[in-house]
Amino acid sequence: EEPNPKLFKDATYQNIFEDLNSSEINEVLDYLYSQSELKLVKPDKANLTTNYIIGLELHVPNKSQALKFLDGNGREIPPAREAKAYLFLPQNDPPVVEEYIVAPIPRPTRYYHNPRRIKDIPYRVRQFSNTEMVVAVNLLRKEVATKVENMLKRSYGASFICKKNCLTFTASAVSSAFSKERKLWITSLYQLEFATLHPVGFQILINMDGINASNWKIEKLWYANKMFSSVEELVRKYENNEIPKALIRPPKASPGETSVPGSLNIRGKRFPDVPTSGPKQYEPQGHRYRVRNQHVDYLQWEFNFRMSYASGIQLYDIKFQNERIMYELSMQEIIVIYAGATPHGLYAQLSDSAFGIGNRAHGMMPGVDCPEHATFVDSVIYNEDNLTPKTYPNAICVFEHNTALPLRRHRSGSSRSGFFNSGLVDYVLILRTMFVMFNYDYIIDFVFHQNGAIDVKVHSTGFILSSLYYHEEGAYGFRVSESSIAPVHHHLFSFKADMDILGTKNRYMTLDTEVENRTRKWYENGEYHTQLTFKRNLKSTEQKAAYKYNFNTPKYHLIINNDKLNKYSEPRGYRILGKGFSKQILPENHGFERTITWSRYQMCVTKRKDSEDTSSSMYSMFDSGDPVVDFVSYINDNENIVDEDLVAWLSLGMHHIPHTEDVPNTATTGNEMSISFLPFNYFTEDPSMGSRDAVRVDSKIKSKGQKADVTIERYGTPHKFSCLAKQYDFQKIVNNASVLFQQP
Amino acid sequence: EEPNPKLFKDATYQNIFEDLNSSEINEVLDYLYSQSELKLVKPDKANLTTNYIIGLELHVPNKSQALKFLDGNGREIPPAREAKAYLFLPQNDPPVVEEYIVAPIPRPTRYYHNPRRIKDIPYRVRQFSNTEMVVAVNLLRKEVATKVENMLKRSYGASFICKKNCLTFTASAVSSAFSKERKLWITSLYQLEFATLHPVGFQILINMDGINASNWKIEKLWYANKMFSSVEELVRKYENNEIPKALIRPPKASPGETSVPGSLNIRGKRFPDVPTSGPKQYEPQGHRYRVRNQHVDYLQWEFNFRMSYASGIQLYDIKFQNERIMYELSMQEIIVIYAGATPHGLYAQLSDSAFGIGNRAHGMMPGVDCPEHATFVDSVIYNEDNLTPKTYPNAICVFEHNTALPLRRHRSGSSRSGFFNSGLVDYVLILRTMFVMFNYDYIIDFVFHQNGAIDVKVHSTGFILSSLYYHEEGAYGFRVSESSIAPVHHHLFSFKADMDILGTKNRYMTLDTEVENRTRKWYENGEYHTQLTFKRNLKSTEQKAAYKYNFNTPKYHLIINNDKLNKYSEPRGYRILGKGFSKQILPENHGFERTITWSRYQMCVTKRKDSEDTSSSMYSMFDSGDPVVDFVSYINDNENIVDEDLVAWLSLGMHHIPHTEDVPNTATTGNEMSISFLPFNYFTEDPSMGSRDAVRVDSKIKSKGQKADVTIERYGTPHKFSCLAKQYDFQKIVNNASVLFQQP
Ligand SMILES: [Ca+2]
Ligand SMILES: [Ca+2]
Ligand SMILES: [Ca+2]
Ligand SMILES: [Ca+2]
Ligand SMILES: [Cu+2]
Ligand SMILES: [Cu+2]
Repeated sequence: EEPNPKLFKDATYQNIFEDLNSSEINEVLDYLYSQSELKLVKPDKANLTTNYIIGLELHVPNKSQALKFLDGNGREIPPAREAKAYLFLPQNDPPVVEEYIVAPIPRPTRYYHNPRRIKDIPYRVRQFSNTEMVVAVNLLRKEVATKVENMLKRSYGASFICKKNCLTFTASAVSSAFSKERKLWITSLYQLEFATLHPVGFQILINMDGINASNWKIEKLWYANKMFSSVEELVRKYENNEIPKALIRPPKASPGETSVPGSLNIRGKRFPDVPTSGPKQYEPQGHRYRVRNQHVDYLQWEFNFRMSYASGIQLYDIKFQNERIMYELSMQEIIVIYAGATPHGLYAQLSDSAFGIGNRAHGMMPGVDCPEHATFVDSVIYNEDNLTPKTYPNAICVFEHNTALPLRRHRSGSSRSGFFNSGLVDYVLILRTMFVMFNYDYIIDFVFHQNGAIDVKVHSTGFILSSLYYHEEGAYGFRVSESSIAPVHHHLFSFKADMDILGTKNRYMTLDTEVENRTRKWYENGEYHTQLTFKRNLKSTEQKAAYKYNFNTPKYHLIINNDKLNKYSEPRGYRILGKGFSKQILPENHGFERTITWSRYQMCVTKRKDSEDTSSSMYSMFDSGDPVVDFVSYINDNENIVDEDLVAWLSLGMHHIPHTEDVPNTATTGNEMSISFLPFNYFTEDPSMGSRDAVRVDSKIKSKGQKADVTIERYGTPHKFSCLAKQYDFQKIVNNASVLFQQP
Repeated sequence: EEPNPKLFKDATYQNIFEDLNSSEINEVLDYLYSQSELKLVKPDKANLTTNYIIGLELHVPNKSQALKFLDGNGREIPPAREAKAYLFLPQNDPPVVEEYIVAPIPRPTRYYHNPRRIKDIPYRVRQFSNTEMVVAVNLLRKEVATKVENMLKRSYGASFICKKNCLTFTASAVSSAFSKERKLWITSLYQLEFATLHPVGFQILINMDGINASNWKIEKLWYANKMFSSVEELVRKYENNEIPKALIRPPKASPGETSVPGSLNIRGKRFPDVPTSGPKQYEPQGHRYRVRNQHVDYLQWEFNFRMSYASGIQLYDIKFQNERIMYELSMQEIIVIYAGATPHGLYAQLSDSAFGIGNRAHGMMPGVDCPEHATFVDSVIYNEDNLTPKTYPNAICVFEHNTALPLRRHRSGSSRSGFFNSGLVDYVLILRTMFVMFNYDYIIDFVFHQNGAIDVKVHSTGFILSSLYYHEEGAYGFRVSESSIAPVHHHLFSFKADMDILGTKNRYMTLDTEVENRTRKWYENGEYHTQLTFKRNLKSTEQKAAYKYNFNTPKYHLIINNDKLNKYSEPRGYRILGKGFSKQILPENHGFERTITWSRYQMCVTKRKDSEDTSSSMYSMFDSGDPVVDFVSYINDNENIVDEDLVAWLSLGMHHIPHTEDVPNTATTGNEMSISFLPFNYFTEDPSMGSRDAVRVDSKIKSKGQKADVTIERYGTPHKFSCLAKQYDFQKIVNNASVLFQQP
């Protein structure tokens, strides 16, 4: 099971980016709870007015300290290990959210304000929490559910107070794009698989402003396509037949089927006719990589990974052939902007970090979500759901994959150029995680190729959101079921790439493809000739480097080191290639757009600062009036970016107009978005030329008509294996479902 | 070895698109040779002035006849089987190229002018042929090689008259973009692996106009960055020291290496440290598809494929769940437009069909080019290289692939929405071919997903072209070796997609994403609100349907059937999604651009005509003065395209600025271009819901703290296998290299 240890480095690697383990987290918790001035209570005792810790994660060291250690002589002391705690402090005046750094680990002795957080964080813009959901649900139960029980049952054949035929709900934040207060639009759904496909059109606006729960109130209600100011008004008008009445019933299975449309059970025309396994992958000689302490070694690659509670997956110190290519490559934000004719759709402009992106990765299924032969890695997360840190199994997986595509190949079959065929399969190492945001599942892959290239890939799947079908929603979407319409929406993803090309002193240059229109004295009759050429375009400042994609001006984007020239005097560098850029068409500075200013640009290159560590924050759901992280300010000071430590901020996206085939789940086909980092004049030749995975066939003939001498060169790599490597033992899941699910 | 026959349909399928087999080709050849008025000679006797057959292939039936058979009651007589012969007829006055249809097969009795070919084809614009290369090489040998022998040896340490230290050459056509005559620029290269990386800068212009070889002449020569009008002038000036002299030597292996830079041997830092096999794929229960008579069945899919001698791979009658989605999906053209400061690069605007694209597919290597478990299919090609048809092994491969990515998945892990994980791996069937155009290798994949989606994917690899390094070439490229610079170039690919959505009467509609700026009476203080919406935009005529990609106006492109509505009254359709569009920036109607007018548009939708069967032709290398296939004329008549039989013409492309890592071969990573065809309101729900490949895990808990009941549902599909399916026996290649190479 353990791979050939000769393939790997010594196990004593110290990963300064490794996430806090359970005992470290417990130490930090104990320390914070013992600081009486913080007045912290434990989550099980917390409410809207109590100070408490909502989450906690590693505080990644400042880069200068990290580099000192990483690039030191091996005798450097690693930077102090620190934690970052997210605290709700409603007891403060004014109430705030605080991010405290707790240090050192182990045995913390001090805490201090996160120096990377420049602005104060008003309590109103805080991320979602259990404490407020408890209040909101109680309010709904008390002020709505019982009062409308009769109306719901008659209108929908279901209600919130139920054993079967249940309604459930989901919420969209009314972000500060729309309101200076903290509000939530709740929409009601049949509690079926899956609820977001079965809205009934009953929506409720809760005003959750302030820390006094008794001031919270039901502000509006939407029923049968009309707005009401109070539950009483709605119920009175309903009972007095002053309004049209909804009449909807829960969907049923189609004749001959056992499952409800929209559920994830087999349905429709079955195939294959006879159940038969599709192809599988295996590792004939075991793993060719090693995962230890959140550090991965794979052939010429190595890197560290971690899961940020707030912003999701992060890679650090990515090296190829022992040279750092990237200091950091990390997810920053996941956004969906919906639309609709009724409040829930119209207000649904969602910033997923408000839920803690790292919170949402766990339980990937072997053989489906990742191959059976993958290495599954747990994450350890502390959040308000528990008193102690929680281990989430299968949060991340790492596997080597045979893409069945050559990375390179050439076949030559002529006397003039020889008879040979040389190729190398594009074997890749993939680090994968999936974030499930209630209904949607986002698949994030980091892909490492043998030629020094890295891809980041994003796919969306899972369930779409939908609105109750009626005429006016037709402007926003297509019907996807008898009773629902799925609105157009915009997915947006923010990534950070802190490339370090042979050091931190880098430049951003584009190669702009142009048309040259000129004559040459030897050219045909002195006519002019048009042909391709390209210009080097050095971007001197941050504003010049704020890039809005333009199809009509093709260009290459390079991060180069002007002091490190290749053999031919060209600066060594990497190319950044985005596939899956998407135009943000909503107007600038209007509403929610103000807090996602990164989405205006497909790529920005800024001068790196520890204090500009993210493009977004957990507060972006509610802070567009005055964004806590104001991304556009990173470029507004228009700093010099020549020979500086540069960071590229990349925005991917996709307009999604759902259709019937998005039910039950959106297919990943057609929705891949990616960013590739490709060596560009960095190596003297393709570094995959050293790969023993290559195969070369030569065929030589001595004289015409004779049988050729054929050799197949595999550079010592075995290729014939008689029996399978291990397969995943699925009984493990049957015995212990906690690998996939955390249950009460 | 043979898969479970229950998975597949009866073998009596009659494929009316099946390529001519050897005996059919021989019958056609015999018939044509017996038509004395054609005055045909056999290729081994052919020369510039003799009439002969340069190639021959199936003449695909007219669509109306084909559909009558395909959609008939099973008792229809198939359309007459016909051949299309490409004939050089220099004996005609004026000399022409003819395309004759020979019918019927078997036992031909008549031939007639290809009715789909409206324009005459002047002999001057003919595709490349052996007969002219023989004359050109003789001219070079007689008029150049011997006379410059001394100069070449002293300048380059190599010559054309050689046993070792050889020069070889490659040619760029001087298309009618540049000249009304037929000319070729020849460039000289070291005969090394691989020649295109080792130019020496000695270039020769041959005027090959007319059919009288004795009129052919050396028109210009380029040596040491200067132009000369004759060999005599060059030699005289060289010997008299009137010009600077080149001094270049063949590259040598670096110290410690055994192979020359640029060759495809292992080199540089070796990895893995210990040779170890990477992951492989296998089919535990054998193939789940069947390939017979160029007909493929795979789960719910079926289609036919063929290899056109002229234009490459074609798919016909693609059906999913017994409904035709596409009548034809086919490659049309492969273009590369180079640039440079010296004639060879400047004139290199190459139309690969001039070589016969189908000619260039063979010898894919099991385990590298396609997986070991793939089904390899031969092609049978007749061209002037042989007197009889030739079987090319491994021209096409078909395989099922586990992409290691879910096609769809959702994980639910809350009491409210349940504990389940349901997913389906994106198993795909891939039909692959590779076209090797001397130096470049193009990989073409057709990918079939279980949800009714089809992708066409193009990757480029192989060797780049390069120019001898000197200062002025720096405007066009980067140095990739001591002596060479690789110029910027533009790859362009044309594809035809004759979609038939539930019949041939279709419409092209876009969904244009827009911003809605409006107030709603119930909205926050009556302020206006901006949100997404989309407009249906029916394209009524061909010119309105000629699409130039615009990033700032996101849209979906749909082909729909307005008479076939789904359950919710929306027209059923498919979406066309292009990833890998590329702006053609050269000016319209100038030079070569005139014959690749398809490249102006990323997509055109035209009314289908048998006579408009291709976007390009084998004559496009030389015909830009008056294109034989004038694509833009298809849209210039601006026909109605509402409720007509529509064809979508799709252009993919990529600007390639080569860099050191393109040596020896361009990596496929980062250069994928694709077109996806995605069901859009076509099915009532995702048709992959019927797949028994799906896996569903449910976890139910009876009471808190108890162990959950876990079930893993696989719908009867086996999943545990103890031993490998067969692997490819590579000894087959060692015993018989003709699988990979055709040798003299
Ligand atoms: Ca700045
Ligand atoms: Ca940097
Ligand atoms: Ca037309
Ligand atoms: Ca059609
Ligand atoms: Cu979506
Ligand atoms: Cu290229």
